[in-house]
Amino acid sequence: MPPHRRIDVVVDSVKRLQRIGATANLANLLQKQHPADLAQVFGEIQERDRQAAFNALCDRNSRLAMEALSELGPENGAKLLAGRAPEEIAALLQELESDDAAAIVNYLPEEISAAVLELLGRKEGGEVENLLEYAEQTAGRIMNPQVFALSEDLTVGESIVALQGSRDVEMVFYLYVVDERRHLVGVISLRRLLLVSPETPLKRIMTADLISVRVDTDQEEVARQVASYNLLAIPVVDEENKLVGVITVDDVIDVIKDEATEDIYRLAGVSSDERVFTPPVESLRKRLPWLVVNLATAFLAASVVKVFESTISAVTALAVFMPIVAGMGGNAATQTLTVIVRGIALGELTWGNTRKALLKEGLVGIGNGVATGALAALGAWALQGNPALGAVLAAAMIINMFVAATAGTLIPLTLRALKVDPALASSVFITTLTDVFGFLSFLGLGTVFVRYLH
Amino acid sequence: MPPHRRIDVVVDSVKRLQRIGATANLANLLQKQHPADLAQVFGEIQERDRQAAFNALCDRNSRLAMEALSELGPENGAKLLAGRAPEEIAALLQELESDDAAAIVNYLPEEISAAVLELLGRKEGGEVENLLEYAEQTAGRIMNPQVFALSEDLTVGESIVALQGSRDVEMVFYLYVVDERRHLVGVISLRRLLLVSPETPLKRIMTADLISVRVDTDQEEVARQVASYNLLAIPVVDEENKLVGVITVDDVIDVIKDEATEDIYRLAGVSSDERVFTPPVESLRKRLPWLVVNLATAFLAASVVKVFESTISAVTALAVFMPIVAGMGGNAATQTLTVIVRGIALGELTWGNTRKALLKEGLVGIGNGVATGALAALGAWALQGNPALGAVLAAAMIINMFVAATAGTLIPLTLRALKVDPALASSVFITTLTDVFGFLSFLGLGTVFVRYLH
Repeated sequence: MPPHRRIDVVVDSVKRLQRIGATANLANLLQKQHPADLAQVFGEIQERDRQAAFNALCDRNSRLAMEALSELGPENGAKLLAGRAPEEIAALLQELESDDAAAIVNYLPEEISAAVLELLGRKEGGEVENLLEYAEQTAGRIMNPQVFALSEDLTVGESIVALQGSRDVEMVFYLYVVDERRHLVGVISLRRLLLVSPETPLKRIMTADLISVRVDTDQEEVARQVASYNLLAIPVVDEENKLVGVITVDDVIDVIKDEATEDIYRLAGVSSDERVFTPPVESLRKRLPWLVVNLATAFLAASVVKVFESTISAVTALAVFMPIVAGMGGNAATQTLTVIVRGIALGELTWGNTRKALLKEGLVGIGNGVATGALAALGAWALQGNPALGAVLAAAMIINMFVAATAGTLIPLTLRALKVDPALASSVFITTLTDVFGFLSFLGLGTVFVRYLH
Repeated sequence: MPPHRRIDVVVDSVKRLQRIGATANLANLLQKQHPADLAQVFGEIQERDRQAAFNALCDRNSRLAMEALSELGPENGAKLLAGRAPEEIAALLQELESDDAAAIVNYLPEEISAAVLELLGRKEGGEVENLLEYAEQTAGRIMNPQVFALSEDLTVGESIVALQGSRDVEMVFYLYVVDERRHLVGVISLRRLLLVSPETPLKRIMTADLISVRVDTDQEEVARQVASYNLLAIPVVDEENKLVGVITVDDVIDVIKDEATEDIYRLAGVSSDERVFTPPVESLRKRLPWLVVNLATAFLAASVVKVFESTISAVTALAVFMPIVAGMGGNAATQTLTVIVRGIALGELTWGNTRKALLKEGLVGIGNGVATGALAALGAWALQGNPALGAVLAAAMIINMFVAATAGTLIPLTLRALKVDPALASSVFITTLTDVFGFLSFLGLGTVFVRYLH
């Protein structure tokens, strides 16, 4: 990231204009920006200033203001609208595609959203309301119902005329072909239309073998298909194979980014809707439950140590080295867990090759245990002058890193089998396991061989 | 992921056909699949079988085989070619776009790649060689040099004829307009061409205010621009603003996925090129250095404990509870770190708002410390029957979680200032810090108040 980006200059100017109350100049500056840049600017100023900036722009150019609001994400976007009357909100939402409008309505306070939906329904035939009936994170929820479809009986020339007559369809890449009952039967790329003579019937040049998703397909699966088949858009059909919408690649990119964020966050025990500038109280409310769960599990590990209190009292050196066994196990487990969870997310790890993955991670775990265990043993010997302590340390590390590898593989795979997100097997939980097993193996071996450790 | 995917059926059939040695049937089955599906199939069979399957398909349909190989990723793809003679490899690489070919050549053994490049250069004018001269992970390296550009003096009608005459340009979405010295001056969408009369000069309908990147722009920045401006392709220019290539959205999706994987991996101390089925020895070699670094830091934490050995010997209960302080600090630090690193990656955290983030995380850290510290104090009191021990535990947890929050924010931000990837501040390092501070605060306070702890 370059230290002085153009956007930083805009942010500085916005702040300055707001400070001196130059609203007209502010609106002038804002309306020259791209919606995505505006969203970035809005994201970097205080919430109160953001509302003022949005209002100023909205008075000048409501479509641009709404596009910027949409780019800001539905949750933050809805906040900027929540203070207005339902009539105003409904009018503003009509500036957006209905999938974007639906996403925002979903985050409006309930008492407003009902009124807004009713008003919208009167004007655009209930499209937004229909979208909201599909489950969250499915193709139906994120699709755009305004899909450009042509009858299979048309010729290329007629299709071009139809295309010229269509206004609202901004991003057309593929022309979908449907039969008289709107069943999806084929696809033609825009470029192909240019390459054949106008009399050619669509039927003859369309590709009949096309990839589509159903309204109830999970958005992650939609993204996987668009990404692996290098598509620009994917048609969405209902259970009768009737064309009901289209999902474009820009929405798929948002899904891919959101799902990656979700995985990263879940692995770390962070709620997936938290962002850098979520207000402190809300962040606290979101993170605390994870930490409390982990506190309970930490007490579990502590109670293992408590069982061996008399051994520790006899050989306090055990207390010095026990965090090493637990910590190294935790790190090895985090490595395994991350590779497995990402492998599942990228579709590389499937039912067929689970055993192979387990075998591999087990081997790596033992290898890491032997290598780091030997080093640790030498270190402990040097530090305490007792080779037996080193041997106990090494043995405990090998056991614990094998446990770490096995648990780091099996827990996410088991969660997936139970249809739970594998990333929920966050390092928080795995670390408890390696703490418990680390203390148990190290202090257990220490108790057995206590007479050699003095 | 549905339990029985179509692809699993294909994988099973491939395995069966290979077992009985039915190579002709195998080639028949393979050549009916989409390249992306073939890549998935190749990924799920043993390496030796993969080579055999690729060879069988290559004899039947070398273009499809090469497309599948390309989808498999350049590293794995290069392995499938490495056994062949340079002449054969060069001929096969010509089936691919030159950006995909360049990525593969980059992973060929050095003695082969030089010969292949020379052979390729004779046939296609050194395109692949030129691409390889740009630094890795820049726009120049991932762009396709075959970009469809039109002279600004043409009319719409002439442009359509030119488009019809172009063969190789598979994915045209935008038509770039250049002046007589190939400077990029404008862009027109394919759809726009259909909407105006053939005599219209391109100059009149083109958008002159267009977004481009330079050959040396980092691929992450390219992805950010394509994603935030919802582009299907972005033109690449040299330092004189001459059009030299184009990057399409499907390549951008790969970049976004790779960068997310890199972040997830680095946070966990895993090398970014490791995958689920990286061979065990190679995984060991990649993960061990991280673990050895961490072992050294774990000894640092252990040596802190060692300083307080006499206190522990007097009050062994301290050994029971000290892992709680360290562990909870580690978890809180991981949460903060993850939010900050992801915030940087998504472009939400910039120079201007660093202080705000630090303030927020500090507050959340203290809040989490007070809440979990109070709970832990009650737990320790109940377990050991000593309220003073609980008070020391709570105080140490508050200190350590504040340190965790501050370090989790400042370390990645400092790394970014030093132009190092912030995700390298992996939880492995942060955890050491929270271990050291956790032991120091808890055992330090325990030593000061030792007389109340018996």
